[in-house]
Amino acid sequence: MASSIGIGEYLIQQLEAHGVRHVFGIPGDYVLKFFDLLCRSHLKTINSCDEQGAGFAADAYSRLNGLGVVCITYGVGGLKVVNSTAQAYAEKSPVVVISGSPGVREQRNDPLLHHKVRGFDTQLRVFEQVTVASTVLSDPQTAFAEIDRVLHAAMRQKGPVYIELPRDMVTVPGTTEHQHVDEEVPTDEEALAEALVEATAMLNAASQPVILAGVEVHRLGLQDHLVRLAEKINVPIAAPLMGKSVVREDMPLFIGVYEGAMGLAATRDYVESCDCLLSLGVLNTDLDTGMFTARVVRRQSVSANIDGVSIRCHQFPRVGLSAFMAGLLAAPIEPRTHGALPHPAMPSPFHARPGQAITVERMFQRINAFLSDDMVVIADPGDALFGAADLVIHHDAEFLASTYYASLGFAVPASIGVQLAKPELRPLVLVGDGAFQMTGMELTMAARYGLNPVVVILNNKGYGTERPMLDGPFNDVHPWKHTAIPQLLGTGKAFDVYTEAEFDQALDAARAYTEGLCILDVHLDAHDMSPALKRLTSRLGKRAGRTQA
Amino acid sequence: MASSIGIGEYLIQQLEAHGVRHVFGIPGDYVLKFFDLLCRSHLKTINSCDEQGAGFAADAYSRLNGLGVVCITYGVGGLKVVNSTAQAYAEKSPVVVISGSPGVREQRNDPLLHHKVRGFDTQLRVFEQVTVASTVLSDPQTAFAEIDRVLHAAMRQKGPVYIELPRDMVTVPGTTEHQHVDEEVPTDEEALAEALVEATAMLNAASQPVILAGVEVHRLGLQDHLVRLAEKINVPIAAPLMGKSVVREDMPLFIGVYEGAMGLAATRDYVESCDCLLSLGVLNTDLDTGMFTARVVRRQSVSANIDGVSIRCHQFPRVGLSAFMAGLLAAPIEPRTHGALPHPAMPSPFHARPGQAITVERMFQRINAFLSDDMVVIADPGDALFGAADLVIHHDAEFLASTYYASLGFAVPASIGVQLAKPELRPLVLVGDGAFQMTGMELTMAARYGLNPVVVILNNKGYGTERPMLDGPFNDVHPWKHTAIPQLLGTGKAFDVYTEAEFDQALDAARAYTEGLCILDVHLDAHDMSPALKRLTSRLGKRAGRTQA
Repeated sequence: MASSIGIGEYLIQQLEAHGVRHVFGIPGDYVLKFFDLLCRSHLKTINSCDEQGAGFAADAYSRLNGLGVVCITYGVGGLKVVNSTAQAYAEKSPVVVISGSPGVREQRNDPLLHHKVRGFDTQLRVFEQVTVASTVLSDPQTAFAEIDRVLHAAMRQKGPVYIELPRDMVTVPGTTEHQHVDEEVPTDEEALAEALVEATAMLNAASQPVILAGVEVHRLGLQDHLVRLAEKINVPIAAPLMGKSVVREDMPLFIGVYEGAMGLAATRDYVESCDCLLSLGVLNTDLDTGMFTARVVRRQSVSANIDGVSIRCHQFPRVGLSAFMAGLLAAPIEPRTHGALPHPAMPSPFHARPGQAITVERMFQRINAFLSDDMVVIADPGDALFGAADLVIHHDAEFLASTYYASLGFAVPASIGVQLAKPELRPLVLVGDGAFQMTGMELTMAARYGLNPVVVILNNKGYGTERPMLDGPFNDVHPWKHTAIPQLLGTGKAFDVYTEAEFDQALDAARAYTEGLCILDVHLDAHDMSPALKRLTSRLGKRAGRTQA
Repeated sequence: MASSIGIGEYLIQQLEAHGVRHVFGIPGDYVLKFFDLLCRSHLKTINSCDEQGAGFAADAYSRLNGLGVVCITYGVGGLKVVNSTAQAYAEKSPVVVISGSPGVREQRNDPLLHHKVRGFDTQLRVFEQVTVASTVLSDPQTAFAEIDRVLHAAMRQKGPVYIELPRDMVTVPGTTEHQHVDEEVPTDEEALAEALVEATAMLNAASQPVILAGVEVHRLGLQDHLVRLAEKINVPIAAPLMGKSVVREDMPLFIGVYEGAMGLAATRDYVESCDCLLSLGVLNTDLDTGMFTARVVRRQSVSANIDGVSIRCHQFPRVGLSAFMAGLLAAPIEPRTHGALPHPAMPSPFHARPGQAITVERMFQRINAFLSDDMVVIADPGDALFGAADLVIHHDAEFLASTYYASLGFAVPASIGVQLAKPELRPLVLVGDGAFQMTGMELTMAARYGLNPVVVILNNKGYGTERPMLDGPFNDVHPWKHTAIPQLLGTGKAFDVYTEAEFDQALDAARAYTEGLCILDVHLDAHDMSPALKRLTSRLGKRAGRTQA
């Protein structure tokens, strides 16, 4: 039965039902009608400077809100968010990409309409590669069912989806008598029971078990389950970088970020000497394992992920993370006893040394003391991220980064998505000068929508992480006078920082100035690096010396 | 036989052999080794702020140089240039996308390496949708042959290609004894002869034939052939917007830009009353036909394109544009006689009216008087482009725009590609304030490499072309104080322009200041538009009134 509501309106209703309150994007003629509809709904449209910024903001919004939306026009808009959508895919962030397109009637006879590439399905074919589900809403009979199917896939698989809405379909009524087909694969209960018996026996037999808590725990909203499980069985928790802040880092059972050679020695030694590793929602990426320097013994491992559980060398494909964690909570696992645990270094008061030039290490020490319960740290890839691994994060979900896909330029637009998702948090952005030139001007969104991120630019005059690998003029970046940005945007404050004292004062000034954005341009030596990057470089250098010229 | 040169070096040699002198891009760890190799070659690497800027610059460079190259890292780099590559595809610009990737040995066992999306072939699958040929150089036995094949396809089909170079293959020697397989489909000589006889008869029988000269004439470098043909048979030439400046617009046979309702009435009337239309290298896109308001009679048409010739309602698929034009030049076509021809309005001296606020129409009149032989006009989509259609372009290839794909933000990075391809030209960029926020900071390249574009920002406080269609807050743009940009970049001059007199003076100042970039922030009424856009809006309004609510 044709309903009284149009396809566009139904889509908006479903987004609202999933808790979406903001839609990031830039309009274009093929999507104007849908933007108009958005304006008449409870959803707020947020304009970015470039579509890429909207894509990144939507990804960050999704990570804190549960679902994010980017809405753009056909071709020239859609193909600008392929990279941010790929990041959402790699990092398990459910982002809905909504693209307008030429009307179904306009597409007949395959005319050369502007924004067309090869065929009218080119954009769909591209997004099929970087999403978990996709659809074109060209048929009112199936449009509502397709919206349900695709949104359900985003929520279930925690990945991005693509919805294309031809402009002549926006107000066409859809058919309401559709049956939602649930494509979810049910848990294999027998396998679950077997896996739980095995895991329970391994944990009970172990004298020094450790939990490694990863990003999927966050994406599935299982943080509280995790803490209850750890406390019930009294087992310490480490986190790889991608799982950083899945648990609050000042809780007694938290022993630090484990990332192979890149992490702190005490944490690494404790994890690598355990006799049972319970790995929950962890992706074993190169960066998360310190370029595969992590030494974990497979025959002592229980690993649970969204798509299955592995114990020692065998797999249970149809046992998911949520069911497995619920089962562990109820299983007869004895509380373990353990000796003293390592702890991440707690922040200590920072005393600026007069006239002392600022270094990466001292910068992070000062930031550690600066962090408060209402701040969310957003680190861009590179040394901003490596250094941030040593920061102590106070609350759940207070650390955000592109830790695996590692797309430079994520952090600034991400801060916009973060603060719109959780207005009670103030973003602290850590970003290199090279990455800032990619997307830093998306601070325009902060100016427009009254947000107040604090942006710390690690200005080392180039792509600093690459210099130790192979240097050349291609690693240089033309210097920007970042302090001119508040004038350009008509709002905000900016500070040039060369010394410890200046950094100290600028952070205090930023804390006091809550009316708008703040930029701290921290001028660093071009070859300075964080302790974490030094540890990794030293370890990789040794390995490279062994294995290749 | 294995050669003494590596795969990367062979690739560089072939690019040099095709006349490439600059490579645009941003390095990343998977492509560092190739960047290092580039630095040791005669090619100069040009760093953009964001990969998108490099993609657009390479496209513009290709249009003036014959081939352009963008070189980026895997995933986070490659997937940022999908849109610019799609533009190159749509607008027939041969751009080589070179992406680094994880080493062939690293990819074994499918590990989770940073920048990976779904599988290691995801990026290749994406680029297959927006290129004319693609390859992964993972096999030294075939690498050289693959490079030849793909570059040849770019040159033959005038489209972008994708070359992926795993980082452990850069210095591996390739096999030189490869045979280049020419995939070119040879001309069907019999069909060519038949088509020429028919076309000759139609032209000889016509009393008012017209040539319509399109973009493919430019891409194949046939501009001189075109002029010789027109002069030999004494037939006037019109150009659609996408073919603007294929011939110099002050030549006597040029009768103006023909774009249906959007163009000037005299040109439109002359073309639409012709009794034989010889269409050479024209793509009948919506924008080029004034949203399909062009009225051309098919039974009086001869249309030649790269991929075939059509005469009246029948087709000759294996007759290409080059061969057909060469044949026409030699064919027994009598010189035609014709009465007075329409001409585009030649620039007249501009007299600023004191205290008069600047309008779009007056702005273009002033620019028309400002243009000189050493300037290339680069217009961003929107009214910057529509208005620019009425400018009189002095030389070959002096007008550049994304006329069909219409990707906002092309013009500023394009100006960098243009000036590096032809240092004797000074770019005049026309760009809206919305588009400027997408890529305007790529002026950083001008600052870094000592270029001096003049950037005129049509600042109408939003996406002005969309306001007449459907307006809302989503069409607003947060105002930038553009005059702060020289301070941010450490070079250049900028001017705020509100009146005719201020525009006059600012353009004179820009002409005098050749040391660096100039920005003219032209503050326009939010609802002002060019005469061309008024013509189109009025015509489309009438049509919409007839056909739909």
